[in-house]
Amino acid sequence: MSDEQKLVRFGILGCANISIKLCKAISKAPNATLHALGSRSVEKAAAFAAEHSLPATVRVYGSYEAVVEDEEVDAVYIPLPTGLHVTWAVRVAERRKHVLLEKPAAMNTVELDRILEACEVYGVQFMDGTMWVHHPRTAKMKEALSDAQRFGQLKWIHTSLTYNPGPEFFKNSIRVKPDLDGLGALGDIGWYCIRAILWAVDYELPKSVLAFPGAILNEEGVIISCGSSMHWEDGRSATFHCSFLSYVTFDVTVLGTKGSLRLNDFALPFEESLGYGTFLESSELDYGKIEPGMWCPKSNKHVVETEFSQDVCMVKEFAGLVLKVKRCEMKPEKVWPILSRKTQIVLDAVKESIERGYKSVEIVS
Amino acid sequence: MSDEQKLVRFGILGCANISIKLCKAISKAPNATLHALGSRSVEKAAAFAAEHSLPATVRVYGSYEAVVEDEEVDAVYIPLPTGLHVTWAVRVAERRKHVLLEKPAAMNTVELDRILEACEVYGVQFMDGTMWVHHPRTAKMKEALSDAQRFGQLKWIHTSLTYNPGPEFFKNSIRVKPDLDGLGALGDIGWYCIRAILWAVDYELPKSVLAFPGAILNEEGVIISCGSSMHWEDGRSATFHCSFLSYVTFDVTVLGTKGSLRLNDFALPFEESLGYGTFLESSELDYGKIEPGMWCPKSNKHVVETEFSQDVCMVKEFAGLVLKVKRCEMKPEKVWPILSRKTQIVLDAVKESIERGYKSVEIVS
Repeated sequence: MSDEQKLVRFGILGCANISIKLCKAISKAPNATLHALGSRSVEKAAAFAAEHSLPATVRVYGSYEAVVEDEEVDAVYIPLPTGLHVTWAVRVAERRKHVLLEKPAAMNTVELDRILEACEVYGVQFMDGTMWVHHPRTAKMKEALSDAQRFGQLKWIHTSLTYNPGPEFFKNSIRVKPDLDGLGALGDIGWYCIRAILWAVDYELPKSVLAFPGAILNEEGVIISCGSSMHWEDGRSATFHCSFLSYVTFDVTVLGTKGSLRLNDFALPFEESLGYGTFLESSELDYGKIEPGMWCPKSNKHVVETEFSQDVCMVKEFAGLVLKVKRCEMKPEKVWPILSRKTQIVLDAVKESIERGYKSVEIVS
Repeated sequence: MSDEQKLVRFGILGCANISIKLCKAISKAPNATLHALGSRSVEKAAAFAAEHSLPATVRVYGSYEAVVEDEEVDAVYIPLPTGLHVTWAVRVAERRKHVLLEKPAAMNTVELDRILEACEVYGVQFMDGTMWVHHPRTAKMKEALSDAQRFGQLKWIHTSLTYNPGPEFFKNSIRVKPDLDGLGALGDIGWYCIRAILWAVDYELPKSVLAFPGAILNEEGVIISCGSSMHWEDGRSATFHCSFLSYVTFDVTVLGTKGSLRLNDFALPFEESLGYGTFLESSELDYGKIEPGMWCPKSNKHVVETEFSQDVCMVKEFAGLVLKVKRCEMKPEKVWPILSRKTQIVLDAVKESIERGYKSVEIVS
């Protein structure tokens, strides 16, 4: 096998800020290489390539179409505004290129299903851009939640993702424009909260979802702050809160009958550039080890080292699957489209609950 | 003034576990002394006095009535089951004795109003037994929330109070019996969560309350796990979760536009017996001081020293007010009944929301 056959050649559609991160991640992933970048003008693409010191081998194009039509591109990363996802992801799949799609995956499940159907029909791998699930810390946290001795049975999850990007954002950002990222904060950051909840319950969909009254929408009707409760028939419950109006939080708290797991940087580990991620875990089994003067066990801090940052882990994982499909060693891995779809289903239900005046929305799996 | 006039003479109704704590707190508070203890049998009261080494001067009685009728008792601490509060608190007030009433204050606002009316008519001080608000840490946290430069404008509050007392509790504890502590987890621990939320918003009642679907009730209809969202017309929102089914949490997170405040031992400080309490505070003003490799400012840990534990602080505060009323220096302080009543109003609304199948309940202030 030639060296070239070991690398997935990526194309990128658009010069979004997140594209900078992905260019770096693709260059660091051992099984990926950046092949092409397309923007709405070739000048813009060339300026981006120069500013971010992309290799001279990267082809710069003045259209997204040109990237999709480039026969040497294996996979396309799509960081376009959510409203454009269905059009471009389907087009990419139709050209038999694999799809790495920025989150939120689509405006709704109907659109996502069109994308996933195209990926299925054309035999290409699909994955959404939820990076944190690829950090090695996430697998370690799942081990902690699965430790029945220490953690017991899962009962409750709370997640919160907030930041306050300031007034300029509310005037100009595509993330609050109805025709671009029309899902607003629910799509941009609520997506992560919902994914974290589903991750904790092994992706079992909740029975129903009821948004918190008092969601805040901008003048154009885009959500800038909201949240929701959800519950499962066996008694598990969860809530999340996402907002563009508050100081930074990235919180996950998972409670079991015997223990807890917490972290406050779940979607973007604070210490990632130091080569590790941490989380806190506590259990009633530690009651015997309480420090003098304390009435409750302190949480144990778990440190998980990582060779690559989570964006690189994601690209590496995706490229690894793409290579296997390319070599006809396997069909596209179905778990990634399934996780995206479940996240989108819950997201749709939260949006529907808000739109229906905070009525409970049943989820039929 | 004689030494005796500087001390409030307390009577206690019943030998509940919490009575042990209060006996100690009364003995430590510089302005209080334990005068009488009543139980349903004199043997039980005497055994309690012996077991907990109460001074020989403490009168032990075989009825609650005897404590209430003791002319030398100034104030009565009532740790009886919630269902008995209205009867005994009114009786205590009618005997012109001041009322320190364990939380939850009453089964509902109608009952609480009967208690507060009696206290008003008979000119006695009322306070409920929410200890944490008396810890000096609480005042320091309020200062942090009031710092507009660092914290900005308050947007969101989440509180969680959970513990898992185990199977014996569910069989035998009065806290899950409908005729005793009929409010279950909502009364026992949800009370603290609601109070913390109200505390953070300077006790402005929310516009409406909507309980989370999936509250868990025992066979007799007593809540053992529940939660609720609530919101204010100016866009502030809050959620809380309380449960007898999960590992210990005592979490408060308050988010402002520019900063956050957090602690995970709000109702019972972990380090209290070490003479201090801590909380975490973070602000965007610290973005300039980020440590190498971190992308987000770490929280600042604030340490607040306390001469007395929070139970002693509560007794001291209450006894100080009682002494002023006794000396006719002031009328009973109205803020404490107001805070109890607001907490009860929100608690009632959460319960109503659950009973009405998770409908939104408007709060009319």
